[in-house]
Formats: sequence, structure tokens, C-alpha cells
Amino acid sequence: MRILGIDPGFGIVGFGVIDVTQFGTNAVDYGCIKTPKEKRLPERLFIIEQCFEEILDKYKPDEIAIEELFYFKNQTTIIPVAMARGVIVSTCYKRNQNIFEYTPLQIKQALTGIGRAEKKQVQYMVKNILGLAKVPTPDDVADALAVAICHSQINSQLNDNLM
Amino acid sequence: MRILGIDPGFGIVGFGVIDVTQFGTNAVDYGCIKTPKEKRLPERLFIIEQCFEEILDKYKPDEIAIEELFYFKNQTTIIPVAMARGVIVSTCYKRNQNIFEYTPLQIKQALTGIGRAEKKQVQYMVKNILGLAKVPTPDDVADALAVAICHSQINSQLNDNLM
Repeated sequence: MRILGIDPGFGIVGFGVIDVTQFGTNAVDYGCIKTPKEKRLPERLFIIEQCFEEILDKYKPDEIAIEELFYFKNQTTIIPVAMARGVIVSTCYKRNQNIFEYTPLQIKQALTGIGRAEKKQVQYMVKNILGLAKVPTPDDVADALAVAICHSQINSQLNDNLM
Repeated sequence: MRILGIDPGFGIVGFGVIDVTQFGTNAVDYGCIKTPKEKRLPERLFIIEQCFEEILDKYKPDEIAIEELFYFKNQTTIIPVAMARGVIVSTCYKRNQNIFEYTPLQIKQALTGIGRAEKKQVQYMVKNILGLAKVPTPDDVADALAVAICHSQINSQLNDNLM
């Protein structure tokens, strides 16, 4: 099964594509979309939409996992981040209705066994599970791979995380 | 000039199309998009996207005016409303880059001359300026027409409201 993991954002959006087979979990591709600060908000949203269309067309994931957004995380940037998240979810939905969302707590719990794990510990597990030489950077990329791995570990059970 | 005014929302999105000519300002069409509560969030966003594609294709506005979103308005619903707003803005941007946003204060000021005007007074002016028999309902529709009228009164001057 192929999973697309997404760490939503406005200035930077992380994505990670993994394949889960009987032989293990492997990274297919990962990276981030950066939207130029000098561009206006509508164009930056449109760039995110276009990039996700390309990613979806190229990798054709079976399922999509996205990190849940909490409004208390950073109130000043919540509106553009939520706007970008809306664009991402709607773009994904057009191609694939299997969209799941996970809280940071669920992601940490799934990867490390500890809901309050440090970011570095989660990143260490991303590197080890995928057999990568080093932790992918920036953090948004590792976070996107983490939510994809989280989904791969939860979806075989009863899943309440369908968006 | 044809203007599309939008009152963004998640459960209900108001829209209003007006034509501004040397003879006056007229309503071309107005209404609202309702997204069914029983549907999941991604599908509701997608419904909004599809409806706006239809509205844009049908009415081909020259310029688009949208009400600005304030996070303190209602914190519990801010995330889905902002997500819907992102979808609307990105969908509009694909067809028309002339997107302007106005604060509620600017809209009230433009329609009534008073920044702190009551909602009823703004609705009364919408009805009168457009020569309608009664105030369009629900409020979201009147609000969408109000932002379109606001834009028609401001855009001839130096306009800092381009998104």
C-alpha cells in the first residue's frame, strides 16, 4: 500500500510518500513545497494546489494521512495555515477520498510508544523505520513521513481517523 | 463592470453578482451554497469548490470581493471556515486574479457612511442600492452583496485591498 503523508502549512508544506509491503516500509519520495513570501496569498495557495496535483498524479497514493491542525498552536498564523489546509484537503479529495487525519499525540504515540515524545525521538524513528541515512530536513518533511508511518500502523485496526 | 461578492463560510457561503454601469448598480444573481452537515469535511470543501467553479464560469466576473476573516469572531469554527476560504480563494484565483478583500468595518463604512452601523442598516442599503423588493436572505447573501457594492464604491480610488 502506498501512503501520502502531509504536514500542512502555508509558507512550507511537507510531504512524504511511503510504500508499505510485507517486506517493510520504504520511502518513495519526500520533500517540501515552499511558497514565496513575496507572492500574494491567493497565488501562494494556488502554488500549493498545483504542487499537490503533481504529487498525486505522480505517486497515486492509495491512502492519504494529514496532521490535524490545532488553533492554539500559533494563533497569528492560523488563518493562512488553515486556508492552505483547505486547499490541500479539497485537492486530495478530488483524486482520493481515503483521507485520514491524526493528532500530534497519535503520531508520537504510533512512532515511539510515547504520546509526549520529543520531536528528535520521532525523527530518529522516522529515519530508522524507513532505513534512511539521515533525518530528512526540514522538520516539515520528517513530520510528513511521520504521519504516513503513523497511518500505516493504525489503518489495519478500526480507524476513526477518516476525515 | 461585473463584481462577484463573497461572504465566506463553511456550512453556508453567500455570493452575490452585481453589474455596475453608468446607469447604476444592479443585482445579476445572488444566493448561497449550503454544505450538508452529514457529509464529511473534505466533501463539504469540494462542494464549495465545485459551486464556485460553476458561478465563475457562468457569470465571468471582472473583479471579486471577499469579506476578510477575523479569528476572534468565533474561535471554535475558525478552522473549517478558514479552510473553506482557502478553497474559495484558490478556485477564484485560477480564473481571475483580481481578488480584493474588505473588513466588516470597510463594508459598513462604504454602504452606510458609518463604520459601526447595525447589520439591519447595511441590509437596508443593499436593498435600496440594488433596487430590490426586499432584503435578500439569509444574512450571508446580503453580506455577499454588501461586499460587492463596497468594492464597486472603492475600486475607482487607490485600492490597497488587493489580496
